[in-house]
Amino acid sequence: MKIAVLPGDGIGKEVTTEAVKVLRAVLGQDAALELIEAPIGAAGIEAAGDPLPPATTEIARAADAILFGAAGVPGDETIPYAMRPGASLLRLRKELGLFANFRPAFLFPELVGASSLKPEIVEGLDLMILRELTGDIYFGEPRGIHTLPSGEREGYNTMRYSESEIERIAHVAFRTARQRRRKVCSVDKANVLETMQLWREVVTRVSREYPDVELTHLFVDAAAMMLMRAPKQFDVMVTGNIFGDILSDAAAMLTGSIGMLPSASLALDQKGLYEPVHGTAPDIAGRNLANPIASILSMGMMLRYSFNQPGNADRVERAVRKVLADGYRTGDIAQPGCKQVGTSEMGDAVAAAI
Amino acid sequence: MKIAVLPGDGIGKEVTTEAVKVLRAVLGQDAALELIEAPIGAAGIEAAGDPLPPATTEIARAADAILFGAAGVPGDETIPYAMRPGASLLRLRKELGLFANFRPAFLFPELVGASSLKPEIVEGLDLMILRELTGDIYFGEPRGIHTLPSGEREGYNTMRYSESEIERIAHVAFRTARQRRRKVCSVDKANVLETMQLWREVVTRVSREYPDVELTHLFVDAAAMMLMRAPKQFDVMVTGNIFGDILSDAAAMLTGSIGMLPSASLALDQKGLYEPVHGTAPDIAGRNLANPIASILSMGMMLRYSFNQPGNADRVERAVRKVLADGYRTGDIAQPGCKQVGTSEMGDAVAAAI
Ligand SMILES: CC(C)[C@H](C(=O)O)[C@@H](O)C(=O)O
Ligand SMILES: CC(C)[C@H](C(=O)O)[C@@H](O)C(=O)O
Repeated sequence: MKIAVLPGDGIGKEVTTEAVKVLRAVLGQDAALELIEAPIGAAGIEAAGDPLPPATTEIARAADAILFGAAGVPGDETIPYAMRPGASLLRLRKELGLFANFRPAFLFPELVGASSLKPEIVEGLDLMILRELTGDIYFGEPRGIHTLPSGEREGYNTMRYSESEIERIAHVAFRTARQRRRKVCSVDKANVLETMQLWREVVTRVSREYPDVELTHLFVDAAAMMLMRAPKQFDVMVTGNIFGDILSDAAAMLTGSIGMLPSASLALDQKGLYEPVHGTAPDIAGRNLANPIASILSMGMMLRYSFNQPGNADRVERAVRKVLADGYRTGDIAQPGCKQVGTSEMGDAVAAAI
Repeated sequence: MKIAVLPGDGIGKEVTTEAVKVLRAVLGQDAALELIEAPIGAAGIEAAGDPLPPATTEIARAADAILFGAAGVPGDETIPYAMRPGASLLRLRKELGLFANFRPAFLFPELVGASSLKPEIVEGLDLMILRELTGDIYFGEPRGIHTLPSGEREGYNTMRYSESEIERIAHVAFRTARQRRRKVCSVDKANVLETMQLWREVVTRVSREYPDVELTHLFVDAAAMMLMRAPKQFDVMVTGNIFGDILSDAAAMLTGSIGMLPSASLALDQKGLYEPVHGTAPDIAGRNLANPIASILSMGMMLRYSFNQPGNADRVERAVRKVLADGYRTGDIAQPGCKQVGTSEMGDAVAAAI
């Protein structure tokens, strides 16, 4: 097992350290495990003058899987794109063809109270948002800011999807649904955007190969509403890059504990990048306060998706559930009557529970 | 007062009828009120073979304000754009320059229980989403579906904003905040999209003319999260057309009673189009079941914004609050112990309370 470890910025390093700790506990000390650490984001600039140093890309490319922490610095968006720490992840996604972003939203029974939604709305939530990750307005050309004949400036970006891009992610959606509750909800804006008309047409066509999976469609505005109103109706929700960015964060927030949620971004060959949904959290970085569970569960997804070890993945998830049931809590999920612990103590507890 | 009444499709006709009933009660029977009804949407196709008949556009253009119901039919998105009932509204917005869409999200104390969020999260919510309505990817050219050299098709749309378009909506945001709690949150995706970089730059520049208003920025994914997590922190939230479409519907859903929420879309000259946030609701259309309050409150916004009659607008809002306090409820907001009434009875009750 060859894993690239890219801790990145902010709390990325701390949480990734705990994920690796738990990984070693799962595999045993003499497993054939090759871990190669490389800098990315602001750490990449510091080490090599580039938020995505070519050496980092090469290490990631050569690995079977990538464990990613977080990248970015406050005020990121004012830095030119090529030197922007937060953009390094976008470039890596594109270069490695990591087109299928799995963002599960589920609720630990112990943490139902953390949601801002009423318990009956979210209890038992088990939703998979599948976001296309290498197309859409994120990467579409032409893009830029130019000056109009009138002398004022104009910004422009291009949303684009080809049939094959849509087909590829649609197949992933239907195959994923087959392992779950056999329902796919495709989210678009086909009533306004031609790109999304094609999206709906192609998803519908692909669905004929999966007659055992139910397909529904929602416009993105209605989907945002239904996520708030009745999220438990959804099984797999598939959508494009920009709508997926918005909806997957909204869905994560449903659970009230974004420090708990993992994600996986897969290429066609099962290579994957695994990262916690939370960001760099600069306010608590370096203080042993961050919740490492999202990173630990991301590592669990890595065992499942890239290394085909569902048994070990289950062990990771069970260990996390056990420490929660035993009352261990980092500050972000603190509850009266529970043991408040730091990042490394939480990692120790999960490793011990393995 | 010259008002174009465009009931449109589904429940549009029923709710608009009640709004007009209440308007007459407010103004008294001998007010100089000129109401001109015109067909739009599927009704436009039926009457004149066009979802936006030229005569309807002319009537709307000549009026001081437009009272709109709802437009669209199920399966709308499969009909070519020019003949699509749901697209008639987009065309009207553009033709009349209705660039500033006000979407208030507030909670009636009687209906706190209807929200899917916990009462402490939403109680006292009073948020104004300001959505730019005539630019962005909704109208950007080039757009379409073409065939790539490889033989497969590709859909494309263009997000565009010019400096003057951004300035115009930013001024509206700051002026609106001055009449409220003096806070503007601008929502963009400046970390990924050049268009949104320009958005942030221009909004920041305009803010210097309003030193008494606090300006903050959020990326759209974070904004979707914060709306769910702590919506009461927001006063005015300003954003582009597509992000506004998603966020304003999410915000409406916060209140749990989308049948209650009005909206206004204004041009530079105070002309406005007023419409309930809910859609055509074909499942309950024509059965005296729809909630007319959103349309009645939209008419109230019309009195405030287009006719400069804040006193009468207040009377409309007070009358609605009174019938709610008196226990009148349509089916969508039914509560045990309340009087369930139909569309026209609700309109009668509000008119009587004026
Ligand atoms: C940091 C940012 C560029 C990124 C995105 O928009 O994709 C993030 O929001 C995410 O969802 O991973
Ligand atoms: C019907 C549709 C085209 C419209 C939009 O996307 O603007 C609607 O969702 C709205 O928000 O008024």
